[in-house]
Amino acid sequence: MKISCSKQALMNGINIVSKAVSTKSTMTNLQCILIESSLSEIRLIANDIELGIETIIEGTIVEAGKIALDAKLLSDYIRKLPDSEVTIETNANNIANIRCERSKFNIHGTSGDDFNYLPEVEKNRYISLSQFTLKEVIRQTIFSISSQENTKIMTGELFEVSGNYLRVVSLDGHRISIRKVELKESYDSMKVIIPGKTLNDISKILNGGADDEVLLYVTDRHILFEFENTKVVSRLLEGEFYKIDQMLSNDYETKFTINKKEFFDCIDRSTLLISESDKKPIIMNIENSSIYLKIDSSRGDSMNEEIEIKKEGKDLRIGFNPKFLMDALRVIDDEEVDIYMVNAKSPCFIRNADNSYIYLILPVSIAA
Amino acid sequence: MKISCSKQALMNGINIVSKAVSTKSTMTNLQCILIESSLSEIRLIANDIELGIETIIEGTIVEAGKIALDAKLLSDYIRKLPDSEVTIETNANNIANIRCERSKFNIHGTSGDDFNYLPEVEKNRYISLSQFTLKEVIRQTIFSISSQENTKIMTGELFEVSGNYLRVVSLDGHRISIRKVELKESYDSMKVIIPGKTLNDISKILNGGADDEVLLYVTDRHILFEFENTKVVSRLLEGEFYKIDQMLSNDYETKFTINKKEFFDCIDRSTLLISESDKKPIIMNIENSSIYLKIDSSRGDSMNEEIEIKKEGKDLRIGFNPKFLMDALRVIDDEEVDIYMVNAKSPCFIRNADNSYIYLILPVSIAA
Repeated sequence: MKISCSKQALMNGINIVSKAVSTKSTMTNLQCILIESSLSEIRLIANDIELGIETIIEGTIVEAGKIALDAKLLSDYIRKLPDSEVTIETNANNIANIRCERSKFNIHGTSGDDFNYLPEVEKNRYISLSQFTLKEVIRQTIFSISSQENTKIMTGELFEVSGNYLRVVSLDGHRISIRKVELKESYDSMKVIIPGKTLNDISKILNGGADDEVLLYVTDRHILFEFENTKVVSRLLEGEFYKIDQMLSNDYETKFTINKKEFFDCIDRSTLLISESDKKPIIMNIENSSIYLKIDSSRGDSMNEEIEIKKEGKDLRIGFNPKFLMDALRVIDDEEVDIYMVNAKSPCFIRNADNSYIYLILPVSIAA
Repeated sequence: MKISCSKQALMNGINIVSKAVSTKSTMTNLQCILIESSLSEIRLIANDIELGIETIIEGTIVEAGKIALDAKLLSDYIRKLPDSEVTIETNANNIANIRCERSKFNIHGTSGDDFNYLPEVEKNRYISLSQFTLKEVIRQTIFSISSQENTKIMTGELFEVSGNYLRVVSLDGHRISIRKVELKESYDSMKVIIPGKTLNDISKILNGGADDEVLLYVTDRHILFEFENTKVVSRLLEGEFYKIDQMLSNDYETKFTINKKEFFDCIDRSTLLISESDKKPIIMNIENSSIYLKIDSSRGDSMNEEIEIKKEGKDLRIGFNPKFLMDALRVIDDEEVDIYMVNAKSPCFIRNADNSYIYLILPVSIAA
């Protein structure tokens, strides 16, 4: 193989596929990037079995061929090169000679004959989204996946299509995050559970453009994301997702509207008096047209804040893990949020009028 | 005490004095900031015995007084407040009531009666520098202090004034860094060794303005830096600094001029093939009008680079710890640097024509 391309194009490609390079495995190929050139295109591929990524980079092809190179060494080396043309030439011993201006490196690689290519994904079922929307729905739900491997399904997110709506759901046993977005067309119903790691990685690769499209193809076992010159294939999580509809409810006894930033900042300050080890909840008193947050720390320091609200229904005293409230408030872009509660033991809902976002958070039981 | 000031002014003051808050000590006062208000000014003070910092902040004084508050809690809390007026009021039980808009915090403090004020520093001997110059000379020398506490003097830097010149020297047994700057006036000779930690901290507090002055007052045991509304007092390191003049020499057998960026980038790339554990030197062949860097890694990868130079004198093959070369090249602002060598076992000098900077680096012995 002999190819040349700009340092920038090569570096971009390496950055994209590196998300699928295993950092733990000792199986050499999982730590490598395959550079493969046909007579018409140069592809970079990495695959750690859970996740595979392939991207096409622009360049000049002198001779077709392929080589698998250590991803870390390749990436570090290319990053340190001047912004100039890079030439990669391989020999029969699978040594890659990489040249850029006066720099010359010889790196041992492998033939790539036993490299794990991306699995073929049948393109029967798909949906189309903008990069912006996909990136946003991930950001607005990913924080409430579980990190506990023993509840495998909670480490992923449900992507559920019905008609022209996509609903994305994550939950961790204490809270549920739901985003619903309208699609440009209607599709056949589908339900898949995508690993959280895949979504985090995809989110970093997407440029987030509102006019740039991503196609999501699904089969029973895999999902393929296609955008620009890149393909990402991930295994799906197997199993049945939790039946969340029966946990949702529109009933409430107390509803209030609050300035999101004031509420967030106030909870944020309150955490200064709650040490991690305490696991003390933040207690709110919702009374008339105010919410009072009062905290006494074990050291004897105290906080006492009041925020004006627009309230309907009963007064209420309720306790929460402050982190859960902050996680949800942080990703809501509205200036004012509506919060619905039933009593001190029932879940609270932060949601907007058309339910395009719903954050369900369980309260923490507090002494009466 | 009752004072009020803008959140911004208070936060800036806290950030400045926090550099002198002990993070390790369990002696309460060393982890506190003293807020002290006379009828005319509000001062913040912190002092960890090695280093003491005092700064005056603007604000309104309602009642004079003082209180010592936990630095971390105070700093975290003020940071999380809205950009608005902050009022601090203390009561007879040494509780500080801090209010900002609707936020109210009560923090337990101590009276501050046993707080360690900054030591008095006699203002007989001093020099004046711009903040820019002080920040620059620190940046250009601080990397070669030693971190080994058993050679205490090497953990500091020599500041030596003679006539209208200040010379700053640091060394760690493998290399010496020297910066010489011209002062606006002549001063009596002086020689002090300032702890590296103090210089690092000062450097972070200085705004670095070329028109902003810093006054350095020295006594036998202390140095006082005075600038804007801030005073920093540090203990000096005791003892005799190394006699470095006898290690310097203008003799050379090989001299070359090289593009700094090309040289730096090339050494930087070479480190990819030298694993930390190897402690392998980078070997250079200086031949005619080129310098060749050739490295073979234990894995069998190799690098081969050539950089054009302007050379005087003999050819030479010499080895270095790449980090030492990179540390010096990184802080030199010139586009081209002059490097002087004698043989493969004698120190190399990177210095400019007027010796305003001199970096001495010992080579690593290599097989012939």
